[in-house]
Amino acid sequence: MNKTILIEQVAKVFVEQMPFNQFLQIKVVSLDAEQAQISFPWQDVFIGNPAQKILHGGVISAVLDNVGGMLAAAAMIDKLTEFDIVSIQQKLATLGTIDLRTDYLRPGKGVEFTASAKLIRSGNKVCVCRMELHNEKRTQIAFGTATYLVG
Amino acid sequence: MNKTILIEQVAKVFVEQMPFNQFLQIKVVSLDAEQAQISFPWQDVFIGNPAQKILHGGVISAVLDNVGGMLAAAAMIDKLTEFDIVSIQQKLATLGTIDLRTDYLRPGKGVEFTASAKLIRSGNKVCVCRMELHNEKRTQIAFGTATYLVG
Amino acid sequence: MNKTILIEQVAKVFVEQMPFNQFLQIKVVSLDAEQAQISFPWQDVFIGNPAQKILHGGVISAVLDNVGGMLAAAAMIDKLTEFDIVSIQQKLATLGTIDLRTDYLRPGKGVEFTASAKLIRSGNKVCVCRMELHNEKRTQIAFGTATYLVG
Amino acid sequence: MNKTILIEQVAKVFVEQMPFNQFLQIKVVSLDAEQAQISFPWQDVFIGNPAQKILHGGVISAVLDNVGGMLAAAAMIDKLTEFDIVSIQQKLATLGTIDLRTDYLRPGKGVEFTASAKLIRSGNKVCVCRMELHNEKRTQIAFGTATYLVG
Repeated sequence: MNKTILIEQVAKVFVEQMPFNQFLQIKVVSLDAEQAQISFPWQDVFIGNPAQKILHGGVISAVLDNVGGMLAAAAMIDKLTEFDIVSIQQKLATLGTIDLRTDYLRPGKGVEFTASAKLIRSGNKVCVCRMELHNEKRTQIAFGTATYLVG
Repeated sequence: MNKTILIEQVAKVFVEQMPFNQFLQIKVVSLDAEQAQISFPWQDVFIGNPAQKILHGGVISAVLDNVGGMLAAAAMIDKLTEFDIVSIQQKLATLGTIDLRTDYLRPGKGVEFTASAKLIRSGNKVCVCRMELHNEKRTQIAFGTATYLVG
Repeated sequence: MNKTILIEQVAKVFVEQMPFNQFLQIKVVSLDAEQAQISFPWQDVFIGNPAQKILHGGVISAVLDNVGGMLAAAAMIDKLTEFDIVSIQQKLATLGTIDLRTDYLRPGKGVEFTASAKLIRSGNKVCVCRMELHNEKRTQIAFGTATYLVG
Repeated sequence: MNKTILIEQVAKVFVEQMPFNQFLQIKVVSLDAEQAQISFPWQDVFIGNPAQKILHGGVISAVLDNVGGMLAAAAMIDKLTEFDIVSIQQKLATLGTIDLRTDYLRPGKGVEFTASAKLIRSGNKVCVCRMELHNEKRTQIAFGTATYLVG
């Protein structure tokens, strides 16, 4: 099994096997060892403030954490030298978010949202990602920075 | 209308009129100008990792942001000198999270969760809260720090 | 007095009248309402770890805070409509860092360092900057995100 | 060599062999595997804003990072099962700050400052500390949260 197929499988796990991501209706736009991009549609249940039809801050933090975590997993797989299913599963089981900072820039208005992540530190134990959230008009809604345990 | 009743009404708005908070099934345990506490029950839709029955990181960030935001609103009301509905609504409309840091400490296992917030900086324009998330066994799951625009 | 001259004076205050910045030997490379860049030379007193000749994390956080704060001041001046000295000084006196996140990416090795800042949120009360630190070989050493009170 | 002596030696290294900490005139008040406390006196070179005799934000971030890093080192030593000098030095060489958040609460006025740290997550690869800075009147000046690589 090669790395590209493994990374595709990780993307599948994120969107098809994680109940909260299914609730968010996340789709993977692109994923490799350097960057990740996901999208999700507006849903009325995402509303935080009833006076304004905008995303709840928790939804924003959740998708930023998702896209960064997906990239951390892809970066981890990219460094693997052994490809047996057991060692891969053991590695992925250790993956976890250590901390996440979200900077809320503008109200979360839109009909379709895209979250993207870039790797800014990639180590054997820890990696750090920077994330962004935009709506369908390319207006930036939020920034994120997260540290993941990968080893 | 006095401050205590106004703060109670803010609590009501948070849990009854915000669709995402209704989805999370948040209840207010206590709320005054110095501290806030909310609780919510386990739901299977909160699962992040299918291999482990634990809270998705996004759910954790969402409830920490909620409890901190509720406290920021209560602290804002506590400083009001005019109590007409229009000025209160104008003030509350400006309330927003500027940034949020979540520190994920332990897997989010449990059947009933409690999130609490304390005010660590309370200004006319900005306030800063520290938050904690525990399960029903008093195991701490996460820490949070958030800055809110209040003026 | 026009805005460009005022912004130049702010730069002067940062490097000539702040004792800790004089200790750091900071020079302003460029400063306008959208971006800022400063530089500083290696000094042995900056060493954190004696085993390695690298910048102490505190020096890194200090220069990131500096370059972001300088940009926040320039952005504040750019929004002014009145230019009398008293209102400008009153505005600048309120400027302060609310919170700062530093992500340490690589060991702080080098002989000349450059810190740069971009404005990612610019409001009347609060602005948010993202900062980067590089050495003379363009190796990135750190990332920063800071929220400033500006009103 | 037992753990208590080793931890004392780490404290010595922090204050006696790190040039930037010597510049800050840091003294260790207490250090064990659960908490750390350091103190330092006012110096005019610490001034950020010339109009106000208060600590530069960079000095505040530096001391918070110091006290957290010292605690991370003590916690790392406390978990050791082998005590030969070489393995200890190898472990300590890997210690590094991954990220640091500082929340500036009040102006840094005072003649003698105390920074303290508590361990909130202690793992084999990563540990997370929360820090506080007070002046001699017990007025809290800042809060910090930092993630350290320890393995």
